Amino acid sequence: MKILVTGGLGTVGSGLIRELRKRGHHVLSCDNRHQPDQWAFAIQSDIERPTYAKADVSEYRQIERIFEKAGPFDYVYHCAAEFGRWNGEDYYETLWKTNVVGTKHIIRLQEELGFRLIHFSSSEVYGDWPELMVETVMDDHEIKQLNDYAMTKWVNEMQIRNSCLMNSTESVVVRLFNTYGPGEYYSPYRSVNCRFLYCALNGYPWTVFRGHARTSTYLLDTVMTLANIIDNFQSGETYNIGGATLHSIEELSDVVLKVAGASPKLVCYKDSEALTTKAKPVDASKAVRDLRHKNSYDLETGMRLTAEWMRNVYALT
Amino acid sequence: MKILVTGGLGTVGSGLIRELRKRGHHVLSCDNRHQPDQWAFAIQSDIERPTYAKADVSEYRQIERIFEKAGPFDYVYHCAAEFGRWNGEDYYETLWKTNVVGTKHIIRLQEELGFRLIHFSSSEVYGDWPELMVETVMDDHEIKQLNDYAMTKWVNEMQIRNSCLMNSTESVVVRLFNTYGPGEYYSPYRSVNCRFLYCALNGYPWTVFRGHARTSTYLLDTVMTLANIIDNFQSGETYNIGGATLHSIEELSDVVLKVAGASPKLVCYKDSEALTTKAKPVDASKAVRDLRHKNSYDLETGMRLTAEWMRNVYALT
Repeated sequence: MKILVTGGLGTVGSGLIRELRKRGHHVLSCDNRHQPDQWAFAIQSDIERPTYAKADVSEYRQIERIFEKAGPFDYVYHCAAEFGRWNGEDYYETLWKTNVVGTKHIIRLQEELGFRLIHFSSSEVYGDWPELMVETVMDDHEIKQLNDYAMTKWVNEMQIRNSCLMNSTESVVVRLFNTYGPGEYYSPYRSVNCRFLYCALNGYPWTVFRGHARTSTYLLDTVMTLANIIDNFQSGETYNIGGATLHSIEELSDVVLKVAGASPKLVCYKDSEALTTKAKPVDASKAVRDLRHKNSYDLETGMRLTAEWMRNVYALT
Repeated sequence: MKILVTGGLGTVGSGLIRELRKRGHHVLSCDNRHQPDQWAFAIQSDIERPTYAKADVSEYRQIERIFEKAGPFDYVYHCAAEFGRWNGEDYYETLWKTNVVGTKHIIRLQEELGFRLIHFSSSEVYGDWPELMVETVMDDHEIKQLNDYAMTKWVNEMQIRNSCLMNSTESVVVRLFNTYGPGEYYSPYRSVNCRFLYCALNGYPWTVFRGHARTSTYLLDTVMTLANIIDNFQSGETYNIGGATLHSIEELSDVVLKVAGASPKLVCYKDSEALTTKAKPVDASKAVRDLRHKNSYDLETGMRLTAEWMRNVYALT
């Protein structure tokens, strides 16, 4: 299959490209940075067969040009997005432009060109839902999203739903729950797993908010499931992709202390955080059934592998 | 001195930061990507003393916030820009927003906060000028810039000039001529030195347009000169920063073949390129006089050091 992955330099996108190529697909990608293997448009590229294009998804012309130059594509994995709740609060102009205008551009191109779309949503769309997170919750309940990032992700799902109904576009939505692993470069806006581990390996203190619980999915597991989608593409479906076991943030922090060999004195405990979902128990049974989703790495094994990668990438001892 | 460098992850910016810190200055920087040492705004940063902020200079709020959080600054080196002629043609939306709207934001902040500005312009502002490029050419002659990148750089110079006249802001403009060296990561839009060398080391063919001549300045020389500006800041001045020796593109290509040990068969020769300045002889005597500008690396030495760096960075043998 010929596939475009937007956000191809991101944590999920880069892992997904590797897996899709391993399976023999012809994969091209784009992201908003220059790269050695990129197309030049006004001039001839130095590289004979570029597989990457620099493009800002919020700029229609830059995205459309990829389809003209390198399309048609059978599938588009649309990973390009501003990621994370606090990143979205700090960079809301970029968030809304990239996530909402950017995704609308992709949908318009889909309506014209007819590719199948796999769109990346987030567990954040479940907002303050206090019970088991099943895909159908929003069919029966009105959910209030707790931050702008969550809102953009929910808006995207409705944009796609409307396009499916109005224009018969074919799309699948995946809602990723807390995902971590090698390939997730540290910033203060990344997953709690990444943040704690980076702090521990550097000897920086971190804060644990008590009373919150999450699942953790190892990136490689997520990537395998995502790559399976095109083997059983069911348009209109939405899938939770998450871990099987709920753990408290205290437990995660303890695992970090263990795999990093860090001092418990680094950890500061506080009462639970405002406007943050207490627990996110996830029903991923539909992804298990349709997409052969597996959780092959327990938290400690996954965190140990992530620590190894992180030590290497940041030259930490 | 307390200094902000915009575009701090770029080729010139990153080298400049290193040199300014070596000289004991307190340097903060920004660029448009996430980095481990970055500020978080809505949440507490994990790192105790961040020295970097993610910001898109075309978004006023994101830039203003840096001055509020980390200012006041004595000097701002404004390196942030979309770089290069063909990059500008391929990404003109981003080019005009970043270079022109972005620089206007910096000027507005300067008018309010009173820091001294060092603005990065380009030899491209000389357009089709056929003779020696002296800073005063535009006082006597009407120049036609040959591409949008050149136009944004010339617009910036006029914006700064108008602000100096209207609001008594204090600024220095530097016009960089072809600069190369370790720290310049390859993309098809980078300097001709970088492109040829990357092709040679990878065994890719490249095209030499006959009849063009340039100077080449080694990045470290440029960086030293730039760091010297604050020791002798003369508001209103414009400086050419360029090499002392004009060489043809054929000669550069021959040096590349030599230092890379590549086959001459990789080189294809063509007649001269349209809308490209034939020769860019530069008068850098003012920078030599006021800023102690030196060209300490001859082309072959500089290219040999760059090749070493490039082999290492791209894991080439």
